[in-house]
Amino acid sequence: MEKYPGMVVIDFTLPAAVNENAELYCAAGCPFVMGTTGGDRAKLMDDVASAGLYAVIAPQMGKQIVALQAGLETMAESFPAAFGGYTMTVVESHQSTKVDTSGTAKELVKSFNGMLGGEGFSNDDIEMVRDEEGQLGRMGVPKEALSGHAYHTYELTSADGSVTFQFQHNVCGRSIYAEGSVDAAVFLAERIAAGAGDKKVFNMVDVLKSGAMA
Amino acid sequence: MEKYPGMVVIDFTLPAAVNENAELYCAAGCPFVMGTTGGDRAKLMDDVASAGLYAVIAPQMGKQIVALQAGLETMAESFPAAFGGYTMTVVESHQSTKVDTSGTAKELVKSFNGMLGGEGFSNDDIEMVRDEEGQLGRMGVPKEALSGHAYHTYELTSADGSVTFQFQHNVCGRSIYAEGSVDAAVFLAERIAAGAGDKKVFNMVDVLKSGAMA
Repeated sequence: MEKYPGMVVIDFTLPAAVNENAELYCAAGCPFVMGTTGGDRAKLMDDVASAGLYAVIAPQMGKQIVALQAGLETMAESFPAAFGGYTMTVVESHQSTKVDTSGTAKELVKSFNGMLGGEGFSNDDIEMVRDEEGQLGRMGVPKEALSGHAYHTYELTSADGSVTFQFQHNVCGRSIYAEGSVDAAVFLAERIAAGAGDKKVFNMVDVLKSGAMA
Repeated sequence: MEKYPGMVVIDFTLPAAVNENAELYCAAGCPFVMGTTGGDRAKLMDDVASAGLYAVIAPQMGKQIVALQAGLETMAESFPAAFGGYTMTVVESHQSTKVDTSGTAKELVKSFNGMLGGEGFSNDDIEMVRDEEGQLGRMGVPKEALSGHAYHTYELTSADGSVTFQFQHNVCGRSIYAEGSVDAAVFLAERIAAGAGDKKVFNMVDVLKSGAMA
């Protein structure tokens, strides 16, 4: 820290390393951007707050995806019954090594449920595509992205079938996360330089909102 | 009005009739829902305000589409640079008798431009599909909806091509507008019954927001 006074660490490791790494940054007084998911999140937030450290902590670093999440969340708050009577399907495709359902899909489902009313849509109904044939054919994933992609399609259909809304966010590779992380690190460095001290732990919505000043 | 005291007129006519019809409703003191577009809009709003009449006036009665419009508008306000560096394509298909570009597409383009930054996207770049072959094949419009549909696809792609976002709203026939108009009429009747007098002219965002209380 003495050698590199403006340093901001970017952390993309494994869930098991989340808390130990954060403890290290806290002990060293080193601001950080953490895109790693998992670990004990409550402990993570507590440790960083106690240390009074600057950090951007977000499970999703793709800032356009975060913008869509936040946009749908606001829609659901403002227009809770907008899609009453509609039915929804959600299908997501990721590399075959990903065993669990997309966390981003689950987040968006929460917002859609806010607008669907009634019983809403269950996370168990999210269709997972993990086979090469479905990925290349039905989902349209490029061959070179089979080992690293995140494709999501949400489709809402009116009760009489006459109206369909569709939302897609399709990511190949990891450059969107790298770009978002760099944005977050620059944002954090600016906050530290500005020295405004009452808020020190941020998320990607904060980073996005700062675009207002860009 | 004496015979039907709770009456609310729903007006879907032609642009040329907008102002004369509104004058009639004002003279009769009859609350109305107007989905008709065109005419002298400033005069329309003035006439209704002067008459102190209750009305819902909206160029788009499909409330889910209005929700999407409002949602994207809010996203653009909150996250003005979220899609910086992205490129956009917009394609819309309507019945072959529609000569002008979709007004709804132009509205949404405004919001997307708020997030794209830079030069943004020109309305002239909205691709119009009016031929049967393109409608059935590429757009996937059902044959029975060729004479009445409104299909819209907005696609945003990152500079390096690795990320794509797509938004679609596809309407066959007119039931979405009929439903929205009935919702608007019910909303207006409730407002009149409640007697809250400081706001009397509403739009579909007001109707949607009232869903918060449903």
